[in-house]
Amino acid sequence: MEENRPIDALNNSKGKRVLLRLKNGTEISGTLKAQDLHLNMWLTDVELKKDEETTKYKDMLVRGDTVLYIIL
Amino acid sequence: MEENRPIDALNNSKGKRVLLRLKNGTEISGTLKAQDLHLNMWLTDVELKKDEETTKYKDMLVRGDTVLYIIL
Amino acid sequence: MEENRPIDALNNSKGKRVLLRLKNGTEISGTLKAQDLHLNMWLTDVELKKDEETTKYKDMLVRGDTVLYIIL
Amino acid sequence: MEENRPIDALNNSKGKRVLLRLKNGTEISGTLKAQDLHLNMWLTDVELKKDEETTKYKDMLVRGDTVLYIIL
Amino acid sequence: MEENRPIDALNNSKGKRVLLRLKNGTEISGTLKAQDLHLNMWLTDVELKKDEETTKYKDMLVRGDTVLYIIL
Amino acid sequence: MEENRPIDALNNSKGKRVLLRLKNGTEISGTLKAQDLHLNMWLTDVELKKDEETTKYKDMLVRGDTVLYIIL
Amino acid sequence: MEENRPIDALNNSKGKRVLLRLKNGTEISGTLKAQDLHLNMWLTDVELKKDEETTKYKDMLVRGDTVLYIIL
Repeated sequence: MEENRPIDALNNSKGKRVLLRLKNGTEISGTLKAQDLHLNMWLTDVELKKDEETTKYKDMLVRGDTVLYIIL
Repeated sequence: MEENRPIDALNNSKGKRVLLRLKNGTEISGTLKAQDLHLNMWLTDVELKKDEETTKYKDMLVRGDTVLYIIL
Repeated sequence: MEENRPIDALNNSKGKRVLLRLKNGTEISGTLKAQDLHLNMWLTDVELKKDEETTKYKDMLVRGDTVLYIIL
Repeated sequence: MEENRPIDALNNSKGKRVLLRLKNGTEISGTLKAQDLHLNMWLTDVELKKDEETTKYKDMLVRGDTVLYIIL
Repeated sequence: MEENRPIDALNNSKGKRVLLRLKNGTEISGTLKAQDLHLNMWLTDVELKKDEETTKYKDMLVRGDTVLYIIL
Repeated sequence: MEENRPIDALNNSKGKRVLLRLKNGTEISGTLKAQDLHLNMWLTDVELKKDEETTKYKDMLVRGDTVLYIIL
Repeated sequence: MEENRPIDALNNSKGKRVLLRLKNGTEISGTLKAQDLHLNMWLTDVELKKDEETTKYKDMLVRGDTVLYIIL
C-alpha cells in the first residue's frame, strides 16, 4: 500500500521529533502529539529558536497558517 | 483514550494560564475562559507585553488569526 | 450555566464601552451597538487614537479582520 | 425594534455620505449608492485623499477587503 | 427599478472605460469586456501606469483580489 | 455568441503565449498548457525575469494567488 | 487524451525531482512523494537554498500557500 497524501508525512511523524520553520523565521522543534489538516500542531518538549536565542517549553499549539515547511 | 486533535491542547487549558505570541510580536498571558476552533480566545486577568512595556486588562477577546503559537 | 464561546465575551459587552486594537496599531474605543461572528462591530461615541492624535466620531463600522484584540 | 447587525449601520447610510479609511491609509468619502455583506461599496460624488492630495470622481466601486473602518 | 448591489456598478460599465487602482499602486485603464463577483476583470486596449511609466496592452486579465478600487 | 466571464480570456489563450506579472514583481512568459478558475497555470517554454535576470524553464506550475495580472 | 488541469503538471511529476520557489525567496528541490490540490507537497532528498546557504533534509512537508511556482 502506497501513501499518497502530503498530510501522511505528518501523520507518520506522530510521537516523533519534527522541526518547523515559521513564516516569520522562527524555528520550532518538538515531539508531535497531535496534528490536523490545517497543519495546526500540538508539540511537547519544545525548543524555539528566534534571533539566535533558544527557549524551551513543555507544551505548545502552533497555528498551521504560520508554517512555511516541516522537516520530518 | 488518546487525545488526538491540536485543539484539545487548548481545550485542556480552559481555566488555566496560557501564553500567546501574536504575529506582530505582542505577548499576551491570561486565564483561558473560552476558545473556539479558529483559536479565538477569551482571556481574563491579562498581561500584555509589547516593546518591553506591560499592561494589565481584566477581560480580552483575541482574534485567532493573529496568533502565531500558544504556550500551554 | 457557563458561557463557553469567545464571542460571548463580545455579546456580553453590548451597550458597554470596548477598546479595540487594530492590526495597523490604531486604537479605537466606543460603545458597542452591534457585533457579528466575524468580529465586525458597530460602535457609537467613538474615540480613535493613531500616532498620538485623537479623533471623535459619532458612528463607526469596524471591519473584523482588521482587529488584533478587544479589551472588554 | 432594535437593530443588531453591524451591516445595518451601513444599510442605514444608503444615500448618505460615508467616510472610508482603507488599509493603505487612503481616505475616501462619497454618497453610498450600494453595499453588500463583504463591505464592497458603490459610491458617487467621491473625494479621495492620499498623501495630502485630493481627487474627485463621479462613481467608484471600493473592494470591501481593503477597508479598515467606515465612519457613518 | 433601483439597482442595489455594488457589482451592478461594474456590470453597468461593460464595454466602457474603467480605471483600476491595484494594491501595489499600479493604475490600469481599459475597456471592460468581462467581470465576475470576485472583481476579476477582462480588459482590452489597456494602459498600465507604474512608477511614472506607461505601457499599452491589447488584452489583460486582472485578478480581483489585487484591486483597491475601480473608478467608473 | 458573446463571451462574458473573465476566465474566458484565459481559456481562449490555451496553447498561446501569455505574460504573467506576479505580486512580487517577477515576470513570467510561457505557452499556456492548462489553467483553472483559481488562475493556477501550467506553462511550457517559460522565460522568467526577476531583477533584470532571465532564466528559461521547460515546464512550470504557477500558483494563481501570486498573480497580479495576465497579458494575453 | 489531453491533460487539462494545472495540477496534472504536478501529478505527472510524482517520483521525480521538482524545484519550488517560495514566497519568501527560499528555493527547495526534492523528489515529489505526495501532493494535493492546495499544492501541499511531501518531498524527499531535499536541498534547501536560502541566502546562498544550502541545507539537506531527508523528508519535508511544504505548505502549499507559501509556494510561488514549481519548476517541473
